[in-house]
Amino acid sequence: MDTEQPGYSADKQQLQARLRRIEGQVRGLQRMIDEDTYCIDVLTQVAAVSKALQGVGMQLLEEHLQHCVAGAAASGDTDRTEALVHEATKAVERMLRA
Amino acid sequence: MDTEQPGYSADKQQLQARLRRIEGQVRGLQRMIDEDTYCIDVLTQVAAVSKALQGVGMQLLEEHLQHCVAGAAASGDTDRTEALVHEATKAVERMLRA
Amino acid sequence: MDTEQPGYSADKQQLQARLRRIEGQVRGLQRMIDEDTYCIDVLTQVAAVSKALQGVGMQLLEEHLQHCVAGAAASGDTDRTEALVHEATKAVERMLRA
Amino acid sequence: MDTEQPGYSADKQQLQARLRRIEGQVRGLQRMIDEDTYCIDVLTQVAAVSKALQGVGMQLLEEHLQHCVAGAAASGDTDRTEALVHEATKAVERMLRA
Repeated sequence: MDTEQPGYSADKQQLQARLRRIEGQVRGLQRMIDEDTYCIDVLTQVAAVSKALQGVGMQLLEEHLQHCVAGAAASGDTDRTEALVHEATKAVERMLRA
Repeated sequence: MDTEQPGYSADKQQLQARLRRIEGQVRGLQRMIDEDTYCIDVLTQVAAVSKALQGVGMQLLEEHLQHCVAGAAASGDTDRTEALVHEATKAVERMLRA
Repeated sequence: MDTEQPGYSADKQQLQARLRRIEGQVRGLQRMIDEDTYCIDVLTQVAAVSKALQGVGMQLLEEHLQHCVAGAAASGDTDRTEALVHEATKAVERMLRA
Repeated sequence: MDTEQPGYSADKQQLQARLRRIEGQVRGLQRMIDEDTYCIDVLTQVAAVSKALQGVGMQLLEEHLQHCVAGAAASGDTDRTEALVHEATKAVERMLRA
């Protein structure tokens, strides 16, 4: 894939903003631990950060399907399309097991 | 989509076999409850059935991407491809939240 | 655990009703495949069945914590309590990975 | 819960270390985006960070059950135990939906 742009290239700024916000949330978790916040409140915030991360995952998936996978299909390269679809499905499976 | 075949049409038998096995596992859960099986053993089996169901979900996803989405892309219909990719991503999100 | 009642013993009827409903949903999935239902509609229903199964898992977990784990703690057996808590946490982890 | 220690108080250092590592992984994701890393490789790393976060969640859950919930049960306060178990189960549900 070296010479190609990744599927998310038009949205790098937005992805970076989401990841910086998540980084801030992880620092917030450290602060909560530091201040002896009640276990369940920390756990609820862990779930919120997980959800935000999965949101990033879903954006990456959609843009990958839209640009890389659909691009391969549009070019008529069926072997490559099949390989990319299989790879994307395996990545979704890793998200589900995470 | 009425006149088209679903993406899984070549694998209906295999999908049905997986679903019949899952149906048997759900009946097995009822038997476990009936026989007062230890809570954690039932819970472990619930997780196994969930995993089997998600396996079916992943097969449906892969075949949908391979046949329906890649098919739309190969036909050059970019609007339809974009709509299908968006719809598939939303379906993955529902699997993640399930 | 052989001589003890499982944590869910007061709610067996309700659990069985939930599992019978899930069994019916799995048969519904087989019907959807049989009738060539659109991939994404089947996938959405797979997510709904997963969610119903996880609901059963959560009921089992809550009743196990309420009766078996809290019971061990109330009896003052700290080693057994610790072992049961560890076991329950591992079961939650299997649910998360399912 | 204000006058009590959270369940994780004996392991704050270890939790902080895990969270700092996760913070580093989130910064690593930003670097990957910056360097136009292939979508699926970023997605795989997103799944790894989610898994690490859920590991923190499981540690918080286990220590909460071990110290706060089992503590309430050992003190004989059944109403409070029941409320804490219900609250913990709801927190697990939020993790599952995240």
